[in-house]
Amino acid sequence: MNPERPLDALNDARNKRVLLELKNGKQLIGTLKSFDIHINVVLYDTEEHVDGELKRKIGTAFVRGDTIILITPQ
Amino acid sequence: MNPERPLDALNDARNKRVLLELKNGKQLIGTLKSFDIHINVVLYDTEEHVDGELKRKIGTAFVRGDTIILITPQ
Amino acid sequence: MNPERPLDALNDARNKRVLLELKNGKQLIGTLKSFDIHINVVLYDTEEHVDGELKRKIGTAFVRGDTIILITPQ
Amino acid sequence: MNPERPLDALNDARNKRVLLELKNGKQLIGTLKSFDIHINVVLYDTEEHVDGELKRKIGTAFVRGDTIILITPQ
Amino acid sequence: MNPERPLDALNDARNKRVLLELKNGKQLIGTLKSFDIHINVVLYDTEEHVDGELKRKIGTAFVRGDTIILITPQ
Amino acid sequence: MNPERPLDALNDARNKRVLLELKNGKQLIGTLKSFDIHINVVLYDTEEHVDGELKRKIGTAFVRGDTIILITPQ
Amino acid sequence: MNPERPLDALNDARNKRVLLELKNGKQLIGTLKSFDIHINVVLYDTEEHVDGELKRKIGTAFVRGDTIILITPQ
Repeated sequence: MNPERPLDALNDARNKRVLLELKNGKQLIGTLKSFDIHINVVLYDTEEHVDGELKRKIGTAFVRGDTIILITPQ
Repeated sequence: MNPERPLDALNDARNKRVLLELKNGKQLIGTLKSFDIHINVVLYDTEEHVDGELKRKIGTAFVRGDTIILITPQ
Repeated sequence: MNPERPLDALNDARNKRVLLELKNGKQLIGTLKSFDIHINVVLYDTEEHVDGELKRKIGTAFVRGDTIILITPQ
Repeated sequence: MNPERPLDALNDARNKRVLLELKNGKQLIGTLKSFDIHINVVLYDTEEHVDGELKRKIGTAFVRGDTIILITPQ
Repeated sequence: MNPERPLDALNDARNKRVLLELKNGKQLIGTLKSFDIHINVVLYDTEEHVDGELKRKIGTAFVRGDTIILITPQ
Repeated sequence: MNPERPLDALNDARNKRVLLELKNGKQLIGTLKSFDIHINVVLYDTEEHVDGELKRKIGTAFVRGDTIILITPQ
Repeated sequence: MNPERPLDALNDARNKRVLLELKNGKQLIGTLKSFDIHINVVLYDTEEHVDGELKRKIGTAFVRGDTIILITPQ
């Protein structure tokens, strides 16, 4: 990830698998397709994980930025 | 969904069935008719699901954006 | 409801009975008289429902937008 | 209350007794003296009610808008 | 308090004893020295009360506006 | 503290020991080095207190403004 | 850390190990690579700690600013 600005760093993660931790305790793992300045995010091939276990596959997902704690490349 | 910007991706989901996960734990499934930059959303033929079971049908629904966790096409 | 923009859809519901689901778990049913971009809403002939039962009639009500989950015409 | 815009409706309630429902579950009943676009409100001759019972009289009260669920004329 | 605008009303309470109810359930009683449009407030000779009992004296206090439910002159 | 504006009052507390009460119930005591309009704060020689007892020393701390309830000089 | 403005202080912590306390009770320790005015932060070589114990290593992490309580250099 590019260290200059946080959004540059997200840009470097495009098209890679990332893990999103959400404020409701769930985790989403998917391919980062897009994001905006509110940290709204679109993932492809998304999996929902709870307590580290795959719970279900949900395909494409638009995630509202204010529900996200952190994003980390896998 | 279009990968360039998150809202483009929502635009590609117009007139398709989508699932909304809300912060209160409920799920809405409906046909995405419109949205705005706050992610306020209008659904047609909306069903409310709790724990994966259909709870009731509520027809047209305006959903305030700040209650939404994620939107995923069905 | 008009599908182009979410607020157009609310406009189509003016002077009709609508149900508001609030973040505190209560429901208000009333005649939609006005709203603004914050989704502040004024209802006439408002009834408060809890768990689907009429709890009390409260006449005219100004409802602050940030307490609303969804609005659906009855 | 004036149906055109929500704040016009509040304007019609000036100098009348109104009930405020707050997010902390309490209710304030007082004479609406002023409000602004944030729905900050000043009440005169204010009574605090909990579960429908008068708890105490608090005279003049400035109430921060983001704590208010709804305002209804008495 | 001046009825025209809520902040005018706060201005009339300058240099008087006021009670602040906070979202965490505590109450502060102090002399209102200043405030701004966010309802950030500075109190002098501040006392913290819990359940109506004096808990401690904290002198001068800067209180962030978004933690305040209401302000009432004593 | 200067009574004219709340931020002037914080300015008078620069380089003095202050106590921060946080929304999570913890208290930080440190030397106020800087702040901004969001009430983001930097403290030096910071101590974390819980229920009035020193829990640990954390040196320099940047504290995000929206987590702060109040700031009071010691 | 530079005492003039809080963000200057964060700038002085670039490329150093910092601890982030999050609103969900977790702690992240990593090398501060970038931040912005929302206090969105990118860390390298990030470790997640719970109750002072290393829980897992998560490499690079983009952390949304509104989840952060405080940032302290290690």
